[in-house]
Amino acid sequence: MTDVPLSLSFNPAGIELDRRQGLSRQLYQALRMRVLDGRLASGTRLPASRDLAAALAISRNSVVRAYDQLYAEGFIEGRVGDGTYVAQITSSTLPGKKLSTKVSTGISTDLPTGLSTKQSNLPGVLSSEVIHSGALARVERNHLPTPPSGPPRAFRVGVPAFDLFPFEVWAKLNAAFWRKPDLQQLCYGDPSGDARLRAMIAAYLRSSRGMQCTAEQIVITSGAQQGISLCAQLLVEPGDAVAIENPGYRAAGHAFAVAGARLHGVAVDSEGIDCTQLARLGDCRLTYVTPSHQYPTGVVMSLARRLELLAWAERTQGWIVEDDYDGEYRYSGAPLAPLAALDRQGRVLYVGTFGKVAFPALRLGYLVLPPGLVQAFAQRRAVDVRHSEVSTQAVMAEFMAAGHFQRHIRRMRRAALGRRNCLLAHWPANIEGVGSPPAVMAGLHMTVAVSSLAREQELIEQAESVGVEVNGLSSYWLPDSKEPLDQRAGLVLGFAAVPEPAIEKALARLREVWCN
Amino acid sequence: MTDVPLSLSFNPAGIELDRRQGLSRQLYQALRMRVLDGRLASGTRLPASRDLAAALAISRNSVVRAYDQLYAEGFIEGRVGDGTYVAQITSSTLPGKKLSTKVSTGISTDLPTGLSTKQSNLPGVLSSEVIHSGALARVERNHLPTPPSGPPRAFRVGVPAFDLFPFEVWAKLNAAFWRKPDLQQLCYGDPSGDARLRAMIAAYLRSSRGMQCTAEQIVITSGAQQGISLCAQLLVEPGDAVAIENPGYRAAGHAFAVAGARLHGVAVDSEGIDCTQLARLGDCRLTYVTPSHQYPTGVVMSLARRLELLAWAERTQGWIVEDDYDGEYRYSGAPLAPLAALDRQGRVLYVGTFGKVAFPALRLGYLVLPPGLVQAFAQRRAVDVRHSEVSTQAVMAEFMAAGHFQRHIRRMRRAALGRRNCLLAHWPANIEGVGSPPAVMAGLHMTVAVSSLAREQELIEQAESVGVEVNGLSSYWLPDSKEPLDQRAGLVLGFAAVPEPAIEKALARLREVWCN
Repeated sequence: MTDVPLSLSFNPAGIELDRRQGLSRQLYQALRMRVLDGRLASGTRLPASRDLAAALAISRNSVVRAYDQLYAEGFIEGRVGDGTYVAQITSSTLPGKKLSTKVSTGISTDLPTGLSTKQSNLPGVLSSEVIHSGALARVERNHLPTPPSGPPRAFRVGVPAFDLFPFEVWAKLNAAFWRKPDLQQLCYGDPSGDARLRAMIAAYLRSSRGMQCTAEQIVITSGAQQGISLCAQLLVEPGDAVAIENPGYRAAGHAFAVAGARLHGVAVDSEGIDCTQLARLGDCRLTYVTPSHQYPTGVVMSLARRLELLAWAERTQGWIVEDDYDGEYRYSGAPLAPLAALDRQGRVLYVGTFGKVAFPALRLGYLVLPPGLVQAFAQRRAVDVRHSEVSTQAVMAEFMAAGHFQRHIRRMRRAALGRRNCLLAHWPANIEGVGSPPAVMAGLHMTVAVSSLAREQELIEQAESVGVEVNGLSSYWLPDSKEPLDQRAGLVLGFAAVPEPAIEKALARLREVWCN
Repeated sequence: MTDVPLSLSFNPAGIELDRRQGLSRQLYQALRMRVLDGRLASGTRLPASRDLAAALAISRNSVVRAYDQLYAEGFIEGRVGDGTYVAQITSSTLPGKKLSTKVSTGISTDLPTGLSTKQSNLPGVLSSEVIHSGALARVERNHLPTPPSGPPRAFRVGVPAFDLFPFEVWAKLNAAFWRKPDLQQLCYGDPSGDARLRAMIAAYLRSSRGMQCTAEQIVITSGAQQGISLCAQLLVEPGDAVAIENPGYRAAGHAFAVAGARLHGVAVDSEGIDCTQLARLGDCRLTYVTPSHQYPTGVVMSLARRLELLAWAERTQGWIVEDDYDGEYRYSGAPLAPLAALDRQGRVLYVGTFGKVAFPALRLGYLVLPPGLVQAFAQRRAVDVRHSEVSTQAVMAEFMAAGHFQRHIRRMRRAALGRRNCLLAHWPANIEGVGSPPAVMAGLHMTVAVSSLAREQELIEQAESVGVEVNGLSSYWLPDSKEPLDQRAGLVLGFAAVPEPAIEKALARLREVWCN
């Protein structure tokens, strides 16, 4: 990498920010685009956050957050005591010739002088005193981006129609639990979780998913993320290869990377993860998949592919982590059996969550494990957190036992279907560079193709300018993906977060900014 | 290690179990005693759990649980596909000559033949298919023993007077939260925790502990165990040396060991952890301590020792994890400033919990971190669990804001003091081999010395026979401790779990079995 003087390598003058919009996000997008298209070459030193903030006349906090996300996604990297640099991205990901031609274009700078001192080149997020342990560094490299804040709005991804949750019932069940608690339940409990809740979940999965599981195979978790993270902590040794879908659920990839995994992105075709590509990896220890509704493309894994994946696990003695994050939402066609229901070799770990049926902040999920793994997972969970908070588990068990859960799932499925139909019915026709919407047979979001990365970013910025959240498909790819940048472009829209009238209004606003 | 035939190495006939008592615990104690006194030599192969169960005519489950705990404590070890063996314990921990004389005494066996097949020699807890990853094996070696079940009884350790918790208030606050939830709070939240709760905790620590901390330094955790575990995951690399108090809180040791730490037990004298011994370790990266009330000895770390420990951290750039698990309970003498309040170098990570003021199953705690570490801890927590359940945090914030928390602490301190006084007033005088009770200036338990390990085990078994829980001090030591076995003996009694009348009754029963 070249360590060119700052004044020759980074020109913030080219970055224009709209002060009425989220500055941090705009800056992130502007920098990311420049890294991807080669205007910011690998090895370019970025200015310290305070200096860039001064140059752009925005708050330092906005710069820190933008750097933060770029760092999390692998676009920039810190060197201890030596500032922040554009990361080495494999040349295949960069549009060939632009690299050498563009790197020398940013000549002038508005930045104040004196930036070359080590101190001022370190942005706040990469403070030198903390980056000295491998574990800390892995976390810094692999953290989740800050989730969107504020009340739910169109088209936030990952949020169900929780405005329909029966909060009054939940309040009553909570009050009933706390008025007469069983004192025995308030001491230290079973790390696997509340026995009654585990039995309810097993019964639910047997009837709704055709899984032949028992309560003893269930370990309660703090949401799907803890389920995935436990798999990473227990099944992955530093240096192990782990396969993940690409594009895919980046938070899962981060959990495996934090455990020291070498991540391999595997392509997803119309039948699901490409098992031929997976088999070629050779030394892969674990594969993470979302077969019911691939995240984020929406592909449902075919039965043939499911069997091929199970055969891979048996042949290699590998593990499959099956994340069934939104399996409750299926709108047409017969549901396929989960991998965990097809598994005869005890190689599948099934991750379930209440977050997409109730609401994410409940942080309640579960793992269904091969019997031989249950004890180790429960033991690890005990060392990590002892067990989950008592009332959430007990109240959910009662909610299920009393039939509220099954009724609520039906209500949520109807609501999501109505909101999906509204999105598809009012989706603007003929948006330049945007493909037709897919069928959306399942889940809570849809993904549409976009012709180029630049167009994707433009559409997202335009949506943001009218208060609509749209995710870029490009952000679901691993930074070192081989696929050309423009093939990674697309839009991901969650359709369940708000009711139909809000969906219609949001689409009307999008039509204005997207179709003119 | 010798692989002597089973019939020559293990004689279950010598084990006598009282069928009216907990069989698993008796078996655990019997086996542990035989390992410690050399009757079961290192390298002895243990029978498969089903065979030992048959030989003793008890359930296999009882054997599995006993093996489980022995395994967790390092007394036995599994070899993949080759059964379970008495672990190699350093010779200094075993009474010298007994080893060779006793090992050959167990000649006959009542066990059925055919035990030498690999299959039947594997107890259920060590199923061969799971022990093939370092992470799994570390967890199997370092898991927490199953906590005592059933309602609180005298003299359970680690349980406050939660019969006095204002459940009616808690029920009302919960119902109020759920009746009108802020939808914004139900999406994905801040991994550091609820902002209002963090502010309340910071204010509480400033006023009650003299800590100059801000809300931004606080990360909410699922109890103290998650706080400790996060420290282990983030600050320890596999192979790093970590110092822990010996005797000490084994669950903390397990968390560090699971992260790959080499544990070094450091002695505790009348002023706290021995800093001279700590300094001699040389390469130690982190020290875990309980300065307010050493667990389990009850020693309050002197100010001189606190400063010495802080000087160690500054000199070596090491970390100090300060677990203030029961700092609310102080009955006489001026409270000393926590290490975190004395720290000027940002080397102390303070672990706090609501479990000893409210109740353990709440699983709510917090870390107070040096500012440079906050972001990494929050990020790691996000990858692990995203964040804690929303209502528990919001309700505790309201509980604190409305003054209930401060009132409850005063109530709990008075109750614990009354229960301590009751224990001391009715403590049987002149129990053979048992030292006088100490002053008990703080905390929720007391520790008394016992003359020998055999006597400790006898007293515990007698207590169990009349339905009283007493912990052996010997179980708080690291298995490889250098101290002679008899010097590790003692009794640990929690005095807060039940009200005075139950304490008096339990002591009357103990007097009967202990003093006759």
